Amino acid sequence: MTTVKSLPPSRSTAVYRTVQCRQLPTENLGFPTLFPLNAGRSCRSQRSLALFYDRARLKAYTLKPIQAKNDSESSCSDNNSTSFSAVNETGNLVKISARCQILGNSTNILWHDCPVQKCDRQQLLQQKGCVIWLTGLSGSGKSTLACALSQSLHSRGKLTYILDGDNIRHGLNRDLSFRAEDRSENIRRIGEVAKLFADAGLICITSLISPYQKDRDACRALLPEGDFIEVFIDVPLHVCEARDPKGLYKLARAGKIKGFTGIDDPYEPPCCCEIILQQKGSDCKSPKDMAETVISYLEKSGHLQA
Amino acid sequence: MTTVKSLPPSRSTAVYRTVQCRQLPTENLGFPTLFPLNAGRSCRSQRSLALFYDRARLKAYTLKPIQAKNDSESSCSDNNSTSFSAVNETGNLVKISARCQILGNSTNILWHDCPVQKCDRQQLLQQKGCVIWLTGLSGSGKSTLACALSQSLHSRGKLTYILDGDNIRHGLNRDLSFRAEDRSENIRRIGEVAKLFADAGLICITSLISPYQKDRDACRALLPEGDFIEVFIDVPLHVCEARDPKGLYKLARAGKIKGFTGIDDPYEPPCCCEIILQQKGSDCKSPKDMAETVISYLEKSGHLQA
Repeated sequence: MTTVKSLPPSRSTAVYRTVQCRQLPTENLGFPTLFPLNAGRSCRSQRSLALFYDRARLKAYTLKPIQAKNDSESSCSDNNSTSFSAVNETGNLVKISARCQILGNSTNILWHDCPVQKCDRQQLLQQKGCVIWLTGLSGSGKSTLACALSQSLHSRGKLTYILDGDNIRHGLNRDLSFRAEDRSENIRRIGEVAKLFADAGLICITSLISPYQKDRDACRALLPEGDFIEVFIDVPLHVCEARDPKGLYKLARAGKIKGFTGIDDPYEPPCCCEIILQQKGSDCKSPKDMAETVISYLEKSGHLQA
Repeated sequence: MTTVKSLPPSRSTAVYRTVQCRQLPTENLGFPTLFPLNAGRSCRSQRSLALFYDRARLKAYTLKPIQAKNDSESSCSDNNSTSFSAVNETGNLVKISARCQILGNSTNILWHDCPVQKCDRQQLLQQKGCVIWLTGLSGSGKSTLACALSQSLHSRGKLTYILDGDNIRHGLNRDLSFRAEDRSENIRRIGEVAKLFADAGLICITSLISPYQKDRDACRALLPEGDFIEVFIDVPLHVCEARDPKGLYKLARAGKIKGFTGIDDPYEPPCCCEIILQQKGSDCKSPKDMAETVISYLEKSGHLQA
């Protein structure tokens, strides 16, 4: 339970208007979000920090040079809570209590929340942000499906973005090798970025082998329930190897690539994913058909409307 | 100069239709994008990989189990180029030449490109993707401005997303400390993620102190020219310290935080940023007014339309 206090202009009278807040894990962005206790379930009412509860949200955040006061000192106390002050345009001093979290390597970090939230962006886009996590062997057709899916959804006016494992290694993850710990970090970072894209309201499509269940589960855990859609492209190894679109299987068989998934490193098929796209014998569905299967799922799950 | 070859159905006849491509750095996504030489400057024509040049883009990417052929072997050769094959729905073998780049810690990574590109997403959103990089001392009002800006733009139907330095340290950058090299890595990663958001078509607002010019310049270099808008919130140290919204200056003065920007670590003001929001004396513009200044810039720069 956290208390947010709004102080009246006269600081000496100190008559507090207190709004009680509770912590709800709905946004699941790594830090509890605060909602007014009496807030309903509508988009607008699910707002964090009671400060934004009234219509003069922005005004209350006008920062003017104020003298640091004893009653508004900020510090990380033992119970991990802190408070800070802002002066609104009418001269009111607004005092906010918030949690202060000490993370692995980071201290003194406060979560900043904003008036424009995920639900607002979803309303704008007329869709629900989510992550479509494509997993499968190299050569199974993940990138191909990602493109087909992106195009089909775009033609329906939906905003998508593809995070391709290989592409991200050209930028954000350029410092990572293919050692086990770096592979895991590669997936962790992409999971975190995918979470941000979903929070932005986009349908984020990730395309990377992601061979281990625990890494995929860790990414799933970052998203609200239902917003992580794991799609297993189940193509047998011998088919992927025959395709070998990048020539990597040949290099792996020749011993020039070590720890290659399917050759000398395992692939753990998803134990309970949302969608399996299976290839039976030589009968291979077109990327467009596979994309339609995923889109049907999205329609049913309600992600194609706000 | 790279050559993209499209092979006819009969493999034995081997009559190549050759489309010459040139490398243009326009997308600036860390890897050269290929365009047909005779492509115009319209959105649709600026497509990567000539394979997508005809209307049957997706069809050409239908992957069926094909037998690896000598003439379609893939490998990283000395000149960094590689080729791979795909079979389209009519049985045509399509051969693609592409560059293979060896990065710092990553090898065998090919850039995958997609039919839905930045310009398509921009068209959908009716805006141009960009990064608004807010820089300034702790307590200068970066997060406050980011929120005001996000709200003003949202009310105009524009899609924004805020990358707040503190917030990102709860997720993607939770493994980073405040040591000099980790601070630099913190900014690098946020710059890379901001680039992805801009590529997705969003107006991405970053809010972090980012005290060093070289770090900011490195992030600027990731974006196409004109799409990195550096905004300096120029609030004097004594004003920020008097506000001290998080109590961090007090902790820094007491020696409990080391290397705090403005106290025992320098802040390098931008030498040539796009916008300076200056506070003169006690006259402080409201966040809404500051947001309007930035929005006026975006209007003039054409970022608020596709």
